[in-house]
Amino acid sequence: MKFFQVHETSDVLRLIEDTYKPLERTEEVSLYEAFDRVLAEDVVASEDVPGFDRSTVDGYAVRAQDTYGASESMPAFLDVSGVIEMGKEGGAIAPAKAKYIPTGGMMPSGADSVVMVEHAEEVGSLLNVHKQVAPGENVIKKGEDIQAGSRVLQRGHRLQPQDLGVLAAAGVSRVKVFAKPVVGILSTGDEIVPPETKQLRPGEVRDVNTITIGAALQSMGADVLYGGIVKDDLQEYLRRARELFEKVDLLVMSGGSSVGTRDFSVQVMEALGEPGILVHGISLKPGKPTILAKAGHKPVVGLPGHPVSALIVFDLVVRRIVNRLYDRTPHPFDPRIRARLSRNLPSAVGRSDYVRVRLEKRDGEMWAIPVFGKSGLISVISESDGVIEIPARKEGLLQGEWVNVNCFVTERGIVSEEEDLSGRHSAQRGTEETPDCC
Amino acid sequence: MKFFQVHETSDVLRLIEDTYKPLERTEEVSLYEAFDRVLAEDVVASEDVPGFDRSTVDGYAVRAQDTYGASESMPAFLDVSGVIEMGKEGGAIAPAKAKYIPTGGMMPSGADSVVMVEHAEEVGSLLNVHKQVAPGENVIKKGEDIQAGSRVLQRGHRLQPQDLGVLAAAGVSRVKVFAKPVVGILSTGDEIVPPETKQLRPGEVRDVNTITIGAALQSMGADVLYGGIVKDDLQEYLRRARELFEKVDLLVMSGGSSVGTRDFSVQVMEALGEPGILVHGISLKPGKPTILAKAGHKPVVGLPGHPVSALIVFDLVVRRIVNRLYDRTPHPFDPRIRARLSRNLPSAVGRSDYVRVRLEKRDGEMWAIPVFGKSGLISVISESDGVIEIPARKEGLLQGEWVNVNCFVTERGIVSEEEDLSGRHSAQRGTEETPDCC
Repeated sequence: MKFFQVHETSDVLRLIEDTYKPLERTEEVSLYEAFDRVLAEDVVASEDVPGFDRSTVDGYAVRAQDTYGASESMPAFLDVSGVIEMGKEGGAIAPAKAKYIPTGGMMPSGADSVVMVEHAEEVGSLLNVHKQVAPGENVIKKGEDIQAGSRVLQRGHRLQPQDLGVLAAAGVSRVKVFAKPVVGILSTGDEIVPPETKQLRPGEVRDVNTITIGAALQSMGADVLYGGIVKDDLQEYLRRARELFEKVDLLVMSGGSSVGTRDFSVQVMEALGEPGILVHGISLKPGKPTILAKAGHKPVVGLPGHPVSALIVFDLVVRRIVNRLYDRTPHPFDPRIRARLSRNLPSAVGRSDYVRVRLEKRDGEMWAIPVFGKSGLISVISESDGVIEIPARKEGLLQGEWVNVNCFVTERGIVSEEEDLSGRHSAQRGTEETPDCC
Repeated sequence: MKFFQVHETSDVLRLIEDTYKPLERTEEVSLYEAFDRVLAEDVVASEDVPGFDRSTVDGYAVRAQDTYGASESMPAFLDVSGVIEMGKEGGAIAPAKAKYIPTGGMMPSGADSVVMVEHAEEVGSLLNVHKQVAPGENVIKKGEDIQAGSRVLQRGHRLQPQDLGVLAAAGVSRVKVFAKPVVGILSTGDEIVPPETKQLRPGEVRDVNTITIGAALQSMGADVLYGGIVKDDLQEYLRRARELFEKVDLLVMSGGSSVGTRDFSVQVMEALGEPGILVHGISLKPGKPTILAKAGHKPVVGLPGHPVSALIVFDLVVRRIVNRLYDRTPHPFDPRIRARLSRNLPSAVGRSDYVRVRLEKRDGEMWAIPVFGKSGLISVISESDGVIEIPARKEGLLQGEWVNVNCFVTERGIVSEEEDLSGRHSAQRGTEETPDCC
């Protein structure tokens, strides 16, 4: 029997950064298609924003010095010499003249500031100004927001709505982004049948990993090629793996990665190309029988067959590999939620344990409640909100300790302070208590 | 001049829940296409999971009572009567017999437990069992994970990878989901030109809201119909709005929603159908000139023209309307990140203020640094990580106070406790300091 060469989790995460290289395949897309794509080059502004001196209020464009000393009791008097229309040239004004200007309107030459409409009164063609303005007041200068030629976004940035807005404003209507990585999934196991199989025969089990890992890849913007299921037959496995491998940027295989006579994954991964297997076995639970390999420049991953383990390893390891292919800038801050642990959790030193938890608010504090189940149960995976880690250096975690929860579901948008969120969780999960059995 | 009828933010959020109704349009999709879709009905399991009594270890299927009293020094002796293959029938065993069974293999009838391979030794056809097992040990019973007919997921649930896995396991290969809402976007303003315009003329400004709001809608899984830009001409505006309105489930108009002679949005929204305008003006900053209407059963929203305001109102208001169309279950817990405020922020009682912030880790604590800019600047929107609220009941927030940050970028996946996240933020943002000017 061959043994795992088990690596520490932290070593594996470093190895991913060091070993796999970004795809150099890029494409150009319009801003309408660029949401959530990853920039393949720095972007510089094509033009000044705004493109002209612009009023920030409804009012009168003036020369500031013509208003000096003006007050409620002692207004300044200017001649109104016209109206500036939105989207049109601002024209010019002479000293002691003023033009009506709407918010966003183009400043006329000769004017350097805007008197707000609230502080002025038109009497015939005469403007009474009740408040003085300083040069530049209520005006954004040409290029003050964004300067032509300045870098607005960096390579590796994942384009969000606000970023696309800045690009639109800066006159950038197409961007070069990384091509979506093409990822192949191949399931193995004599007992595994396609999820859409009408009637299972005795001993058969539906393929769960193709569905979960496929969806997780979709959530990262990857193009997924579903390779189906290969039975535990080395030649067939090798043929099908090679066929899929040729078409993809990353090959993910699930099942067949533990040590056993039926487990050909290692042989297949070695046969795909040099340098071959880099990691066989990671010191984590669940997920120990994970394999990382590289064939030519392409990463190949062997996930454990058990769906709960496969998803943990996907979230910890495969996501990083996909982000590496995109050369994506890491998330700028820690996205984990702090919560207190509801019970003691023992663990072994030297191994990273990942424990699924449900989140619950108790007396205003967030608590993480471990969701256990007999090994092999799958229903637990949709009953939990996230995962906590018992780090390799620790013997366990104590009840009441603060932990960081990696949440599965994310949502954008603004929650108002006025809202009462206390009912949210129970609304989704019903009143059933998941038993804390182990 | 007509004045806003300003509503409190909390009233508006309630009104959305009360006024707009879920779409009844549904469609059936396979699990391969169901990621992030919203269930239109409860889903019950089609079959028991597992579909047969299943071993959770590699070992020998036995009758527990045949092992009672067995120990290292006094093994029990059983006859090995065969090998169970993955994906095949388990067959049967007689008393005092055993069959080899792999992890996930089907239990033979007559057996009730599995002796782990580590605790048994085959000597010829004789099995020496060194440890007794209890009935049910190392076995998952048929239906123990999920029972046929039990509800596995509820209507309104947004399908995540783990949920799809549970459905796959339970023999559900197609699900009924809400149709994606079709949302139309129409921009207005004489100064606004398409973002892809080659060369701006004096006074013109590129359309930012079409891009940002379109991307934000895409992030929610909506199908976006881009209606383009309509100039400030009532008849043209009405014709184009009606044309788009017919094709969509929700119409979003941007610009033209403040009180002024050029602002026809109110007239257009009233003309689209009964009951017409429900809210004109919300007591929030930025975003006051927001309009909510309903024409027939369809929601219509008028967003402020300024891109920064439009995005805030989208995240606070429009997201809820879209979620309402899906009848989506709210996010199960508070997704906001806690941080300390870096400076005093004054505000007006009775108005909800939304302030963009940058997140920064200082001495191990997360701080929220307000990102200000002259009114009208757009570059600030991609320089911030999220938004905090100064609630309507408060006069402001104090430096050092803990606040809840609604973050713009979300990311799934597991962060390891072994990782040093301190460099992440500066890596993205460079070392430039955004001036805290107001």
